[in-house]
Formats: sequence, C-alpha cells, structure tokens
Amino acid sequence: MEIKVMKNILNSNQDKANEIKDYLKEKKVLMVNLIGSPGAGKTTLLEKTLEHLKGKYSIAIIEGDVATDRDARRLQKYGCPIVLINTDGACHLESISIQNALHEFDIDSVDIIFVENVGNLVCPAEFDIGEFSKIAVLSVTEGDDKPEKYPLLFREAKLLLLNKVDLMQFTDFDKESFSKDVQTLNGQLPVIELACRNNEGIEPWINWLEEQVTKIKG
Amino acid sequence: MEIKVMKNILNSNQDKANEIKDYLKEKKVLMVNLIGSPGAGKTTLLEKTLEHLKGKYSIAIIEGDVATDRDARRLQKYGCPIVLINTDGACHLESISIQNALHEFDIDSVDIIFVENVGNLVCPAEFDIGEFSKIAVLSVTEGDDKPEKYPLLFREAKLLLLNKVDLMQFTDFDKESFSKDVQTLNGQLPVIELACRNNEGIEPWINWLEEQVTKIKG
Repeated sequence: MEIKVMKNILNSNQDKANEIKDYLKEKKVLMVNLIGSPGAGKTTLLEKTLEHLKGKYSIAIIEGDVATDRDARRLQKYGCPIVLINTDGACHLESISIQNALHEFDIDSVDIIFVENVGNLVCPAEFDIGEFSKIAVLSVTEGDDKPEKYPLLFREAKLLLLNKVDLMQFTDFDKESFSKDVQTLNGQLPVIELACRNNEGIEPWINWLEEQVTKIKG
Repeated sequence: MEIKVMKNILNSNQDKANEIKDYLKEKKVLMVNLIGSPGAGKTTLLEKTLEHLKGKYSIAIIEGDVATDRDARRLQKYGCPIVLINTDGACHLESISIQNALHEFDIDSVDIIFVENVGNLVCPAEFDIGEFSKIAVLSVTEGDDKPEKYPLLFREAKLLLLNKVDLMQFTDFDKESFSKDVQTLNGQLPVIELACRNNEGIEPWINWLEEQVTKIKG
C-alpha cells in the first residue's frame, strides 16, 4: 500500500513534467533548472546572467526557496517577472508548482525561463519539472569528490558549471581527479569554469545558453 | 489516505528515535548528529576530532552517504569501528538505520558516537535519529545568508560550527549579518569558528564535546 502511494505521487510529477515540456516546446521557450548545494552560487550566477542578457532576450524567473524571499529580492532589480515558490521546508521543486508558476507569465513573450531550485545536491535531481535541461552548479570550495558522492545530478545534467574557481588556489581541490570522476559518470557532460563574483567565465555560459535558444527557436 | 501513510512513517521514525535515546542514555553514550551541506567540511572535522580524541575516549562512527565509501575510507586509519550507511540515493538518515548500525558496536565500551549525516542542509534536520544533539556544520564559503534561508537546522541544533573561516577574507561573508540572523533564529545557539584544514578552532569544539561527555557520564 505505501509503495503504491509513492508511485502515484512520482507518476503524477512526471505526467505534469511531460505536459510542461510539450507546452514549452510549442511556445519555443527554453527553461533550465539550476541545481546545486546551498551557497554554490546559483543566485549570483543568475545576477550576472541577467546583466548580460537583458535587452537581448525576454527572461522570466522561478525561484525555489525553503523560506524567505532573499534570492527573489536580489533579482528584482533586473526587471524580469519573478515567481517565488516558498516550499515551506520541502527540499525540492515539483512540476505542479512549476505549472502554476508558468500561468503567471505572459508566455508568448518569454524566451528563457531560469528555475533556481532549492539549494540541495540530492533531492532536486530526482524530480523532473519539465525543464529543457538540468544544470549542475558546483563550487570548488565544496570539494572535488562531490560528483562521485552525489552522482545522480551529474548523470542527469546537460551542463556542469564549476563556480568559485578564483578560490581554487586556497583549497585542496584536485582538478584532475574531479575531471576523471565527471568523465566516468557522464562522458557527454560539458564543464564550464566560472568565478561569477568576478565575472570570470560568464561568456562561455552565455554562449551555451544562446546555442540552446537558437536550437529551440529553430 | 495519503496523509495517513506519511504520518505512520514519521511516527515510526520518531518512535525508534525515542528508543535509541533511552538506550544510549542507559549506556551513557554521547551520540551527535553532524548535519551540513555537501562540502561543509564534516569529514575533515571528524578527521581532526579523531586525531585529538584518540586514546582518550572510545569512539564509533556512523557514516551516511548517498553513494560510495569515500568518507568512511578517509576515517579508517583512526582505528575506530565505522558503520557505513549507503542510502542509495536517499537524502537523509532515519532512525531504523541507526538502530541497525548500533548493533554493530560493542556499545558498553563506547563513549562517543559521531554520525555524519548525508550532505544536505534541508532533509536531515527533519528526522530525529535519537541523537543527543544535532550539530550544524556551515562553511563561510556557503554565504552568511544560509541560516535564514534554511532555518530548521539552525533552530534544532545545539551547536553551530562555522568552518573554513580561513577563507572568509576571500568571500563576501558578512559576519555581523550572520550573527544577527543566528541570534534571531536560536538565541541559545553557541557558535564555534573553525578552519579544520589548518587545525584552527579545534580546541573549543573538543572542550564542548568533553563537557557533554561529562554531563552524560554524570
């Protein structure tokens, strides 16, 4: 009995995710799902990204947070529509919340939706929210062993952003070991190194985004 | 119906946690539950702690990991009994696994049990595992806003270890804002600053542990 209930919940999440995928495909909107530990730098990444893309694309944001509107407030100044989903303690976003959030946007005028998931390297990787791709955000201060220790996200992701590389010199981060582990988990996974705070590495990330938008717009 | 099933699961976790609490109290064993994000420095903290305490106390370790035995292998050289709980993707430890793990120790000869929970600032805080206290491990590279953004752990914890303070000068960490938030969430919460990698701040942490052992041994 208990297992059945879990299955129903998971199926319903995947069903809604599939509906969202079809809807965004039809509307030619790129939606990416940013996943990483607390403090990996997801909000700072979004700040820098919005600075680069404003005026060029029409962008909307879905902010997932356990509590507070701190991240949403940080992004307010860029003038994009933002929906904040306060999970009230829950550890990940699900597709039903995303579907509700999408209704708040004038979708026909949107090119890119950034979803900042709850800061968590484990649970958000398990839940499809209808995104075009999951993007793993990892900071070097978390350590080179994290892909092997939390493998699901790195298997599922279409891009890995390695952030805070400006701090690498002050840590024991072993880049060779890191790259070997990533290669073993997901040989297809491109890695872009960034130091968002100092605007390093933003260009390759913007290029990646623009390539995806071009693909989707067809 | 669905809500009932969830309640049963939660109750069963709390029931087992209460059994464990009674058992450890009777056996006069201190069990602490280390909780923090991936890369907060929990395993390095344990390495330094074992170096300091070996020969003085009899210690046992329960390692929670989503995948791999990397952390358990790092601790093997200290010669303590270690039980590794591979959660196979699950995001936190539950009391039933802890109860099974405790059977593996010669409990009458154990003074302290360190549980290293799965790297996750959200879910482990929700699950009592029968510990004497939850200890929050946060690294300054995660940012000063984390207590307010992930409040449950900081409300539940009996001690906050602020790690990687050697890197504070290279970050935007605002200590005043951090302390204010912690004070608001949990006015009773002592904070110890550490840089485990450089052996800074280990002494106050060891003192805290020894005080708890003394309390328990009575």
